[in-house]
Amino acid sequence: MAERSYLDWNATTPLRPEAGAALAGALALSGNPSSVHVEGRAARHAVELAREQVAALAGAQPGDVFFTSSGTEANMLALTPAIEVDGDKRPRTRLLISAVEHVSVRTGGRFPREAVEELPVGADGRLKLAALEAAVARFPRALVSLMLANNETGVIEPVADAAAIVHAADGLLHVDAVQAAGRIDCDMLALGADLLTLSAHKIGGLKGVGALIRRGEHIHLAEPLIRGGGQERGVRAGTENVAGIAAFGAAAVAARRTREAEAKRMLELRTRLEQGLREVLPPVVVFGAEAERLPNTTLFAAPGLKAETAVIAFDLEGIAVSSGAACSSGKVQPSHVLAAMGVATELRGAVRVSLGWETTDDDIARFQNAWRKLATTLSKGRRGIAA
Amino acid sequence: MAERSYLDWNATTPLRPEAGAALAGALALSGNPSSVHVEGRAARHAVELAREQVAALAGAQPGDVFFTSSGTEANMLALTPAIEVDGDKRPRTRLLISAVEHVSVRTGGRFPREAVEELPVGADGRLKLAALEAAVARFPRALVSLMLANNETGVIEPVADAAAIVHAADGLLHVDAVQAAGRIDCDMLALGADLLTLSAHKIGGLKGVGALIRRGEHIHLAEPLIRGGGQERGVRAGTENVAGIAAFGAAAVAARRTREAEAKRMLELRTRLEQGLREVLPPVVVFGAEAERLPNTTLFAAPGLKAETAVIAFDLEGIAVSSGAACSSGKVQPSHVLAAMGVATELRGAVRVSLGWETTDDDIARFQNAWRKLATTLSKGRRGIAA
Repeated sequence: MAERSYLDWNATTPLRPEAGAALAGALALSGNPSSVHVEGRAARHAVELAREQVAALAGAQPGDVFFTSSGTEANMLALTPAIEVDGDKRPRTRLLISAVEHVSVRTGGRFPREAVEELPVGADGRLKLAALEAAVARFPRALVSLMLANNETGVIEPVADAAAIVHAADGLLHVDAVQAAGRIDCDMLALGADLLTLSAHKIGGLKGVGALIRRGEHIHLAEPLIRGGGQERGVRAGTENVAGIAAFGAAAVAARRTREAEAKRMLELRTRLEQGLREVLPPVVVFGAEAERLPNTTLFAAPGLKAETAVIAFDLEGIAVSSGAACSSGKVQPSHVLAAMGVATELRGAVRVSLGWETTDDDIARFQNAWRKLATTLSKGRRGIAA
Repeated sequence: MAERSYLDWNATTPLRPEAGAALAGALALSGNPSSVHVEGRAARHAVELAREQVAALAGAQPGDVFFTSSGTEANMLALTPAIEVDGDKRPRTRLLISAVEHVSVRTGGRFPREAVEELPVGADGRLKLAALEAAVARFPRALVSLMLANNETGVIEPVADAAAIVHAADGLLHVDAVQAAGRIDCDMLALGADLLTLSAHKIGGLKGVGALIRRGEHIHLAEPLIRGGGQERGVRAGTENVAGIAAFGAAAVAARRTREAEAKRMLELRTRLEQGLREVLPPVVVFGAEAERLPNTTLFAAPGLKAETAVIAFDLEGIAVSSGAACSSGKVQPSHVLAAMGVATELRGAVRVSLGWETTDDDIARFQNAWRKLATTLSKGRRGIAA
């Protein structure tokens, strides 16, 4: 058994061996992809190969992939009034987002704050399509941003249905697929996504690399976020992260190849994990359990369970889990996702367990043991209060 | 002798062994620096160690270093009207830049185009301080951006003198030190810089990492470019590029340790290189030769020498050099730097040779041989024309 069990794969994943190999190859390239000499062309080749590989993960064309430094940057790049479709230069005046989006979408990108509208989700964490329908009727040509799968609960959003509604109102759909990629299918055409965000370090690549992918050339990202040199066809300036991009490409290939088998394996492990949670402590609530979820994610709470304490207790037992998203500098804040799902305040301090391709039966067993200990403490505490 | 001679170090450098070692160490860290568990804290530690190391290169405090994905992004982050000094929230209305800045500064960052003023340089490529003085008198509280060393010519700008002028007019000085770092001293206090940009891949780190450093806490970057999570103390959202940042830190340590010895060695090699250029073809012009320059950079031209042709000819002889900056997707454009220096149009197609810590006597010899061949062709061509 490994010394520790890393069960926080939604925060970030280890490097896939295939990505490590591509990285090592790219480190030997000394050139700048913009240089015309042999060294430059070799670096360019590594970037363009990765572009094909990442495009394939989203069912897109290589020329529609723009590499960024993170999913967050890709979201910032996507969420702007200045996206032209078929040469139509009229700026979009509204951004509609679900109430459970990642914090980088919740900032509204480059829309003024008053132009951003939040749409409600149901108790299952899924966007209320009727609310979307009403909103796009009020604001035609809106840009809509809907994540494919939620980072905290793993709940899969009804993206294809939303796309139909958005497109009927002449709107544009951006899909943050950061948590979904490698876990469920991310084909842009099937999803109806016009823009799609990916992050390398959630699929076995390196932190510091992401991509924004457009559905086709008819979509023009007219307002770059980072300006300067002509890299990424003028959409994103700055010397390309060659090694990180090469590793991203290799990770995308591996993620695509292993996805279905891994999803099946994850789901078995997770089913066992959730059974164990409830067997030990029946009042456990697993959020979003009534919806379709990513096969690797469990967000749970129980009366009296304090997430911060639980995360530390698990850590001391050799298990890495988290309390909600990792993106807020380790600060424990009440989850906006659970609030949007109407979860009572006392249950919002939830613990997230997320699995990955290195997760084993042993990891689950270790988690169950630690959970038994923790739950016992909890039960004692509750009896103490009741007495 | 190596199979090829890479003499395009201003475009990008190979990875330093020290940076490679730090990278390898960081790749083993599976955590997200924002996570509170053991894995997260280990990743956080790697980032914070690198922050100290990069700060030291600029004589700054670790808390004043903000990691970005490139020098370009750092410049975009720096060049905004919303920089508060000592809590003064009045936006700055003017950006003054030298006429020889990098393209990422020339875009004006987040200033409206009409708020950007370009200041002339002399024939030696150095900012005309009288012009700066007149400009800050017209526009007090301006943000001024002046590079420490030019990427094409290697000319070192009079930054400390400029700082005194800027500060006397209540202005703020941003210094793009991307090409200078590791080659000359970059101490922010000595330079009088309020903000300083660095790029990892110019000092032996990876492409895809940069930093913006502020002089102290009294300077507040009030308008993040990439928003979302609370990373980089709220100034730059997105999961940190842990491996790239760790390599950046190690590269900064190595650059600092070897700088003086390397500068001396570079200068000897370059002196020999420039002597060879002129011996073979006396009408060769080395740009900025009358000014203080980086010890590693030579930008030269000769009547009848076409830069694009020369770069390809050198490449075929196994030598990587460039025609001006590498940042414009390999497109050969007339140099704005040479235009600003008043160089005649027919000489603006110049060839840049830039050296680094792996450059050897053999590389210079190989270059000289190739140059002799190329110059012969040129002389024949000119005789042909004269006939």
